[in-house]
Amino acid sequence: MIIPETLVKTERQVMLILLTGAAGFLGSHLCDRLLAEGHKVIGLDNFVTGNPENLKHLEGNPNFRLMVQDVSAFIQVDEPLDYILHFASPASPNPTSPLGYPNLPIQTLKAGALGTYNSLGLAKAHKARFLLASTSEVYGDPTVHPQSEDYWGNCDPIGPRSVYDEAKRFAEALTMAYHNVHGVRTHIVRIFNTFGPRMRLDDGRVVPNFIQQALRGEPLTIYGTGEQTRSFCYVSDLIEGIYRLMMSDEHLPVNIGNPIETSIKDFALIINELCQNPAGIITQYADTLGDDPQRRQPDITRARTILGWEPQVAMRDGLNITIDYTRQKLGLPARQA
Amino acid sequence: MIIPETLVKTERQVMLILLTGAAGFLGSHLCDRLLAEGHKVIGLDNFVTGNPENLKHLEGNPNFRLMVQDVSAFIQVDEPLDYILHFASPASPNPTSPLGYPNLPIQTLKAGALGTYNSLGLAKAHKARFLLASTSEVYGDPTVHPQSEDYWGNCDPIGPRSVYDEAKRFAEALTMAYHNVHGVRTHIVRIFNTFGPRMRLDDGRVVPNFIQQALRGEPLTIYGTGEQTRSFCYVSDLIEGIYRLMMSDEHLPVNIGNPIETSIKDFALIINELCQNPAGIITQYADTLGDDPQRRQPDITRARTILGWEPQVAMRDGLNITIDYTRQKLGLPARQA
Repeated sequence: MIIPETLVKTERQVMLILLTGAAGFLGSHLCDRLLAEGHKVIGLDNFVTGNPENLKHLEGNPNFRLMVQDVSAFIQVDEPLDYILHFASPASPNPTSPLGYPNLPIQTLKAGALGTYNSLGLAKAHKARFLLASTSEVYGDPTVHPQSEDYWGNCDPIGPRSVYDEAKRFAEALTMAYHNVHGVRTHIVRIFNTFGPRMRLDDGRVVPNFIQQALRGEPLTIYGTGEQTRSFCYVSDLIEGIYRLMMSDEHLPVNIGNPIETSIKDFALIINELCQNPAGIITQYADTLGDDPQRRQPDITRARTILGWEPQVAMRDGLNITIDYTRQKLGLPARQA
Repeated sequence: MIIPETLVKTERQVMLILLTGAAGFLGSHLCDRLLAEGHKVIGLDNFVTGNPENLKHLEGNPNFRLMVQDVSAFIQVDEPLDYILHFASPASPNPTSPLGYPNLPIQTLKAGALGTYNSLGLAKAHKARFLLASTSEVYGDPTVHPQSEDYWGNCDPIGPRSVYDEAKRFAEALTMAYHNVHGVRTHIVRIFNTFGPRMRLDDGRVVPNFIQQALRGEPLTIYGTGEQTRSFCYVSDLIEGIYRLMMSDEHLPVNIGNPIETSIKDFALIINELCQNPAGIITQYADTLGDDPQRRQPDITRARTILGWEPQVAMRDGLNITIDYTRQKLGLPARQA
């Protein structure tokens, strides 16, 4: 695939960017990318689920400033902002982790609604551009595959996932309203499952869980049949797609994710292979959350067409980097070549 | 049907009730009902779509106090509240009326999200009970008929109706979260199409539009084929259902509406007959809003079972009362018997 370089170079002036959720998995990688592109970044986080360690390497960087604050409260920034990216939200669906959104329901609803309202208000006041980090969860438990952006979704408004799904759906509706009514230049990215270094090891998501179990030599725990599929995108691919979207003129939602579907079971087997874990897998026939979607796969036609984007990193390559990161975090010796 | 009288008499002590959207069509009828039951009511409204005339008859009533305020801003009430009912929101989907929610998108999103957040916060602070006025619009353009409460809906998160639908879905999710996390005693009513006196004549909804056209001797304008159905509930039936729900212990959503389905075309013909309007109907093959639902019909099994409720008023009886009200509002002479 030929990447049209011009797309990412149309607006190369230095911008002052406010990034909410800067200490999160995606937020911190995006922060690095924005700084690498020469921009100045104010990173906002309240560390409810964000990890200060993800930003530690930016200490002393004159182009970065940390603002420890809840995005749901009024945000005061005196310098003129050029761009606001709203990434702050709990994002793990795991009810057994205290960091999963089922255990942070009101914080999650507030980050999606009040946080988006505050961020959009700031964008309007500063005449800044705005990008909303939305999610494949707006499709819920989808009845069509793969999911294109014009699919309306299948979400239970009062189910255990509703605190995240409905907050993000509301955030999309509010973003569109600010675009339509106030003329704010807005963007909406629907992010599918992503993995890579800096995912929290303790928030119960499948990739860090599997890798940690494999590194401990334990069997990998699969909830449900293991036949449910996910489409896992490596984080650098995702950040590239987001950066292209934020520099584009597209205001309608764009899926960013890897369309290669893998069953949870196959994924577990690959991780065991890469970690040289002989312990195999065990299956628990209890769903982690009441309405765990059975399939989730992005249709990335719009991302391909509008942004010239598609994933570049092979899953095994991405996993090897993530496994190395996890070994390091766990204080294990580096992998033998 | 036997109405279990005990259901509505279990909590007969005088309550101090805050009712948001008190000057609206439903709000003002509910206000009258609450006062008739002996309660004291603080009616909150900012008159964006509410009509001061709907509350004029309560001037001087010692049990009623008007509070002119936006529900999206912080609400201060010093007296201890027993109950909060959140009814404030634009509710007409008509894009040709300045009072339709497509023309008040941000106000609508705020009333649903920030208004619900404020009202729930107040309920928590006062240890008061809470009832959310939700809507059949959470079902969107439904793919199953009739709609029972466990149907997840079919809503476009970024479509023209999203400012209302997604705000109400978010409001339901937030209400459930306050119930689950903070133990607030909450109730959620999903209100289907309702008609009766005090509907605004100028907000573009189908019943007042049809009646006004019929009274002017004009042909009734039908958008689309006219085959799309609605289930119209007379307002006194609806208020009875809401009152029963608010006095019940049910915290999961309950549909309140009339399950008798009528096509828009048949409905127009009945109104012409009752108004003795010979001008007939005309059909405009342009939808009023992009995603006008084709069918909407409540399954009221839960309301029947839990609340012992079902509609009592025949459509023609309700329409005659509404026609008389409209004649009076338009300064027309009373109908000949």
